Amino acid sequence: MEESARTTDIPVIDTDVHEMIGNPLEFLQYVDEPWRSRIHPDNWMGISIPYSWPTTGGLARPDANPGNGYRAGSDLGLMQRQHLDEFGIGKAVLTGLLYPSEFKTQPEFACGIAKAYNDWLISNWLEKDPRLLGSVCVAAQKPEEAAREIDRIGQHPQIVQVILPVISHDVLGREHYHPVYAAAQRNDLAVGFHQGATVETAVGLPPYYIEWHTAIEQAWQSQLIGLVVHGVFDKFPDLRVAMIESSWTWLPHLMWRFDHNYRSLRREIPWVTRLPSDIIRERVKFTTQPMEIAENPEHLLQTFDMVGNDEFLMFSSDYPHWDFDSPTRALPTSFSPELRRKIFHDNAASFYGIEV
Amino acid sequence: MEESARTTDIPVIDTDVHEMIGNPLEFLQYVDEPWRSRIHPDNWMGISIPYSWPTTGGLARPDANPGNGYRAGSDLGLMQRQHLDEFGIGKAVLTGLLYPSEFKTQPEFACGIAKAYNDWLISNWLEKDPRLLGSVCVAAQKPEEAAREIDRIGQHPQIVQVILPVISHDVLGREHYHPVYAAAQRNDLAVGFHQGATVETAVGLPPYYIEWHTAIEQAWQSQLIGLVVHGVFDKFPDLRVAMIESSWTWLPHLMWRFDHNYRSLRREIPWVTRLPSDIIRERVKFTTQPMEIAENPEHLLQTFDMVGNDEFLMFSSDYPHWDFDSPTRALPTSFSPELRRKIFHDNAASFYGIEV
Repeated sequence: MEESARTTDIPVIDTDVHEMIGNPLEFLQYVDEPWRSRIHPDNWMGISIPYSWPTTGGLARPDANPGNGYRAGSDLGLMQRQHLDEFGIGKAVLTGLLYPSEFKTQPEFACGIAKAYNDWLISNWLEKDPRLLGSVCVAAQKPEEAAREIDRIGQHPQIVQVILPVISHDVLGREHYHPVYAAAQRNDLAVGFHQGATVETAVGLPPYYIEWHTAIEQAWQSQLIGLVVHGVFDKFPDLRVAMIESSWTWLPHLMWRFDHNYRSLRREIPWVTRLPSDIIRERVKFTTQPMEIAENPEHLLQTFDMVGNDEFLMFSSDYPHWDFDSPTRALPTSFSPELRRKIFHDNAASFYGIEV
Repeated sequence: MEESARTTDIPVIDTDVHEMIGNPLEFLQYVDEPWRSRIHPDNWMGISIPYSWPTTGGLARPDANPGNGYRAGSDLGLMQRQHLDEFGIGKAVLTGLLYPSEFKTQPEFACGIAKAYNDWLISNWLEKDPRLLGSVCVAAQKPEEAAREIDRIGQHPQIVQVILPVISHDVLGREHYHPVYAAAQRNDLAVGFHQGATVETAVGLPPYYIEWHTAIEQAWQSQLIGLVVHGVFDKFPDLRVAMIESSWTWLPHLMWRFDHNYRSLRREIPWVTRLPSDIIRERVKFTTQPMEIAENPEHLLQTFDMVGNDEFLMFSSDYPHWDFDSPTRALPTSFSPELRRKIFHDNAASFYGIEV
């Protein structure tokens, strides 16, 4: 007995430190500056992306905090006032940021979360404001189930697209995923690609947030290249794709390089029958935020010319995040009224089939 | 005895198949077309990068094969005739493609290989043709030893740069590597970044070669961002950097986005005291190959204007590879004689400190 008792004299208590910290705010008091004020209790990226926040207010603009203990962005009334009413917005497409397609574990669980998200979105957002349009969330790693979920929800009059995250662990153009694009096409929905929580760059997750944030458009570039190379656009001739929060001034370079490679290497992908730049120009739209700022705004107009038109760009705000773009301030004043109308209305109206 | 004998009746012979294939050409006879003709015995990428070759001739231009059983590129005389003499080249910088900085195992072995490469390069190439200029090979994972190797070789009159591969498993701007840049600076050598054998993209190694080849410039972008963010240019004010085979028309986008992020996020990296675009414009050069082709060559001239000058671009050929660029054909005919002189001579002459 004595022996036995002694073996428990020095137990290893392996309670996870996250369980031991009852109140995260208490833990924060032990963190030295400047780190303390760069951790936002709501949205420290500390789980999958362990960066502190180099901006005041964390991920959100400080004034978007609803003040009720819930997160910025969760209050429909505040969003309506700060965003829809403030700028006289007729229709707005919600993208969300909960993407079960990123889950590397338990694909059936991911399907369950996707279904819950879609039902929650319709009940709590779309049905409460007819200005809001929604994106179907799916678990693309289960393509047939994802397609069934798109069929289940896709005909809702306020659902306009399927949303996928630009993951780094697989190419979403691969044949495995094609049932998702088939379902989007037959439901006349666009497919939008947006940043998820696991996006990495060509060097993985680089040490600094500014490095990561400057390079993450690489994930959209790679997924866009993959959609073309794996024949998604050839196979689904009515499919429309949106690259959301991807930046867009890299397009001339990508089109030139992609066409050059296509001319040399196309025998590898005989199912792709047209120049990549033509496919992208006809089938893919991009969004503005984070709006790129050229010292000479004329250079942005030249970029439209390089792409071949000014019909690929749709205004996006990224509300309520720190790098929110305001409809009244984001575009250069040198953009003509006609160009502004295209970016603020026409391009999205025709792409999503919206009437305002 | 009988028991014991029976246990060896069905032995597992685990000879590696690469050992069992005595002659790779024999194995090729079992490979169906189109794959058979896309495997080049010399340089099937089958080890680290398992792509078949979508071009005829494999990695090399067919006419660069010396016909003696050795690889294209290995014959000094043939290279002199096909490249240096053919185009009247005064000086040429060799980059190599054996980068011990990529080795993830046995760092001391990597140092040994780097030293061997440098001695071999001087004896077999530099000392045999005064037109050739060389790049010091190092194992950057052992920064102090890499610095000693740079000091050992760096004063050779034909050595003009330190060469590093754009690896995907680490950011080469990190403080750990700074002794390499210190050594380059004190030896008045440039640091060139070139594609290595392990380069990946934001989605790792994508399924098709054309996907990989269209997206690999992401690796240079990430390494360039890292050099700025980790303060390499601030710490080493005389350091000059060349991005080789990186493409360059993505520069306007990267400069705009990087500056925008710097204005918002610079408190994360207080040691970086200037706009990233100014740092890049002053300290970094790029090379032409693979020369980007815009349907309207005017767009390339606009790209120079967006970057801010036409002094960052140096001609490169990639001899003897399949996508070799010829000095007489690679540049658009619309480039002015003055611009051509800068790209073919002036920019490299001032960057490398070369007199022709």
